[in-house]
Amino acid sequence: MRQNPARRAALLDAAIEVLAREGARGLTFRAVDTEAKVPNGTASNYFTNRDDLLTQVGHRFYERLTPDPGMLAASMEGPRDRDHVTRLMHDLVERISDFRSGYLALLELRLEATRRPELRRLLTERVRADLDFNVDNHLRSGMPGDETTVVLLYLALNWLIVERLTLPDVFPADRIHTLVTDVVERVLPGPGRPD
Amino acid sequence: MRQNPARRAALLDAAIEVLAREGARGLTFRAVDTEAKVPNGTASNYFTNRDDLLTQVGHRFYERLTPDPGMLAASMEGPRDRDHVTRLMHDLVERISDFRSGYLALLELRLEATRRPELRRLLTERVRADLDFNVDNHLRSGMPGDETTVVLLYLALNWLIVERLTLPDVFPADRIHTLVTDVVERVLPGPGRPD
Repeated sequence: MRQNPARRAALLDAAIEVLAREGARGLTFRAVDTEAKVPNGTASNYFTNRDDLLTQVGHRFYERLTPDPGMLAASMEGPRDRDHVTRLMHDLVERISDFRSGYLALLELRLEATRRPELRRLLTERVRADLDFNVDNHLRSGMPGDETTVVLLYLALNWLIVERLTLPDVFPADRIHTLVTDVVERVLPGPGRPD
Repeated sequence: MRQNPARRAALLDAAIEVLAREGARGLTFRAVDTEAKVPNGTASNYFTNRDDLLTQVGHRFYERLTPDPGMLAASMEGPRDRDHVTRLMHDLVERISDFRSGYLALLELRLEATRRPELRRLLTERVRADLDFNVDNHLRSGMPGDETTVVLLYLALNWLIVERLTLPDVFPADRIHTLVTDVVERVLPGPGRPD
């Protein structure tokens, strides 16, 4: 297998675009080569088979969304309160929604995972690791809320992004914004919550 | 177009199985005929084109999940309190999860809708109508909570079902159960909520 990391990343980014545009069935090595504008046969030198390609696409999605250390540090400045969590969640929803093709590709991967046990196993590990990281990061940073808070934010905001990216007219744009605030408001226990 | 309602329903049910198993790209009139065990050419007598078939699959999903009047009446018996809402949400999550192929087919439709404006328009109307019905039903029944309660339940429980049906090992089965209770607990305002 070839190992040029920049080339590999470019092929994975091309695969993300193909998945989002054509669906899982449209994802062939040839389609990836065409999308990446590289000679036919290149993708097959980088990935052992389709499962390998699909799995690496999953990793690439999370890699591209991982904030750099400076951004992570900046996001932690200021008091650890409800407003802070709300701001972080707005940023997160914007950042993920802006990577539209990546999120749609990940949904295609989830549906493919129902048909491919090995992909399902590896994607489960990746999602679990992401969720554990978020729980750990939230608790260690001293933000308000507990593990359940983080899991419920994960659940509600994921579907909010699905709605926004697949059927954007179900909720108007300003309602999407207030819904993020509403989710944090309700999911966070503690004072300040209107009962 | 042919109009035998039972035959039409059987073809749509077959289309749901094909979508869930093969993905959107696998859905052809021929595949539907084969799945429904009817002569080749039958589906093309019932649906004007692929968009028509996809749209009707969306309607069929909601039709199959609509509770009958007796079930709806039974679900409204007893005090309108937090425990009642929790019980309804557990029932709902079970009912939707049990229709696994239908839910996976609907996810395929949502992804197809990003590529097909007419499907997107019709699916948006259907989802919006379902959400409006749920909000209206909740408020008129005197259950605790407001419109935001219903929308947040919709968001969190949808992704919980996605998780359960696509990557069932991310959360163990008993955690799925407690998460439904947790969602209702946090999303419902009012007394009884541990702060």
